[in-house]
Amino acid sequence: MTNTQWLIDSHTQVGIATAYEITGLLHQEQSPYQHIAVYDSTQFGAILTLDNIIQLSTRDNFFYHEMLVHPALYKHKNPKRVAIVGGGDCGTLREVLRHDTILQAIQIELDERVTAVSAQYFPELCEKNTDHRAQLIFDDGIAWMQNTASATLDIIIIDSTDPIGPAEGLFGLAFYQQCRRVLKADGILVHQSESPLTHLPLIKQMQSAMLAAGFGQCQTLHFPQPSYPSGWWSCTLASVNQDLHYFREQAAAKQVFATQYYNSGTHHASGQLPPYLRNALG
Amino acid sequence: MTNTQWLIDSHTQVGIATAYEITGLLHQEQSPYQHIAVYDSTQFGAILTLDNIIQLSTRDNFFYHEMLVHPALYKHKNPKRVAIVGGGDCGTLREVLRHDTILQAIQIELDERVTAVSAQYFPELCEKNTDHRAQLIFDDGIAWMQNTASATLDIIIIDSTDPIGPAEGLFGLAFYQQCRRVLKADGILVHQSESPLTHLPLIKQMQSAMLAAGFGQCQTLHFPQPSYPSGWWSCTLASVNQDLHYFREQAAAKQVFATQYYNSGTHHASGQLPPYLRNALG
Repeated sequence: MTNTQWLIDSHTQVGIATAYEITGLLHQEQSPYQHIAVYDSTQFGAILTLDNIIQLSTRDNFFYHEMLVHPALYKHKNPKRVAIVGGGDCGTLREVLRHDTILQAIQIELDERVTAVSAQYFPELCEKNTDHRAQLIFDDGIAWMQNTASATLDIIIIDSTDPIGPAEGLFGLAFYQQCRRVLKADGILVHQSESPLTHLPLIKQMQSAMLAAGFGQCQTLHFPQPSYPSGWWSCTLASVNQDLHYFREQAAAKQVFATQYYNSGTHHASGQLPPYLRNALG
Repeated sequence: MTNTQWLIDSHTQVGIATAYEITGLLHQEQSPYQHIAVYDSTQFGAILTLDNIIQLSTRDNFFYHEMLVHPALYKHKNPKRVAIVGGGDCGTLREVLRHDTILQAIQIELDERVTAVSAQYFPELCEKNTDHRAQLIFDDGIAWMQNTASATLDIIIIDSTDPIGPAEGLFGLAFYQQCRRVLKADGILVHQSESPLTHLPLIKQMQSAMLAAGFGQCQTLHFPQPSYPSGWWSCTLASVNQDLHYFREQAAAKQVFATQYYNSGTHHASGQLPPYLRNALG
């Protein structure tokens, strides 16, 4: 134990830290936007941090990436055009492009260096970056959304960092209103929404902002995510007209690509809210 | 951050540590069996450690206690007599005695000091200790099971610590054979089975040992548990003749006691295994 080196991810605002046993630092740099580092761990592969907050590990990023993407895409009747705001590690883009209904997936990431570092240390997450349907834009997601024509997208995925720092503006009413405008009438927005245990006030606030932005329905899904604080995570969906209980279950059952966490069973499971959460979200 | 004091729970064998921000030590002692301590945390209430491993917090023990008890009890047609092996904090006993079918709940805990400390710092978990149906025995669970008459129990709950140290013998074939003998033909055994991510080889080994002990069926359920390594936990059930897919859903829906995580939705959700887990467990 005395020689164990820990990468400690402190979340003092929620009173928790998670730590991974590491063997060393593989990379670090200061980009124009944030401090980027990659560590090598004993049991979780490479670990990416942004401003010292753990973003993902080789071993366990599949929970988050699969659950941010597949429920939303299978709740849409025919998703063709997708925008990903953030998502610089490209794991979300990869999951989106596994769906053969998709004609175009545009990723708008602020920090080009995150994607460059990911391509080097998490090449498996970037394997779809050269897909002809992928478009990688390095720019401000808020400005991009403002400049995008109304009713042109089927799905918007906000794969942001925590609501402090660069990503703060992605969690508010103004941005959700722009997303609402850019989505088609049967469109779906999905935003990562932190821990259902330690970030419950944020989830409530996000749902309120989504409804205030003109979305007709909201739904929060939950799933494990060991490398994030509390080990339990969520995403929150909002739809314009689409009933979020709709599910292309036959397509999911016949799914031609392999997943580690997502299947039709965990799709249903993720929407089963425990009593305390159901009471809190109304 | 510089003044933050962390209680660090290191699990070097799985490369993870979890930590809670604490304000101080409320209690510590060396019992004949282990080191017992209670800390006060900034956001999770009191935290109990045994030999420096976090056992529970005031705030988040409900996941584990509810999910160890209610699925097993609602999968049994008419549970009346229950034995709890371990479970010294008495949270499991409390959940069991919320069911009005129960006539007798016997808890066999090795270390009387764990229960005494729990009664002082987690009084809510011990509120059913004086119920006329409760019987608290402080003795070795293995010996107790060997001395118990065959086919006399409906449910056995093994609420043990990790499979290292005092609880090691509770995870093996010999003990499961004794449990099998003591259960009635429609009886159900449930044992906490660690993290589905970081302890998968143990879960496979437990299922094999249960089947080798003569149980007809096994099922692993999963649920969040922030204060345990990876934040994701499981229990594994084994039945003699009872189909473990059976569920007294109407009784669960009409449930007269309040729960925070358990309901009929999370009951179903806990049994939905992700592809990697389904493949591993066959």
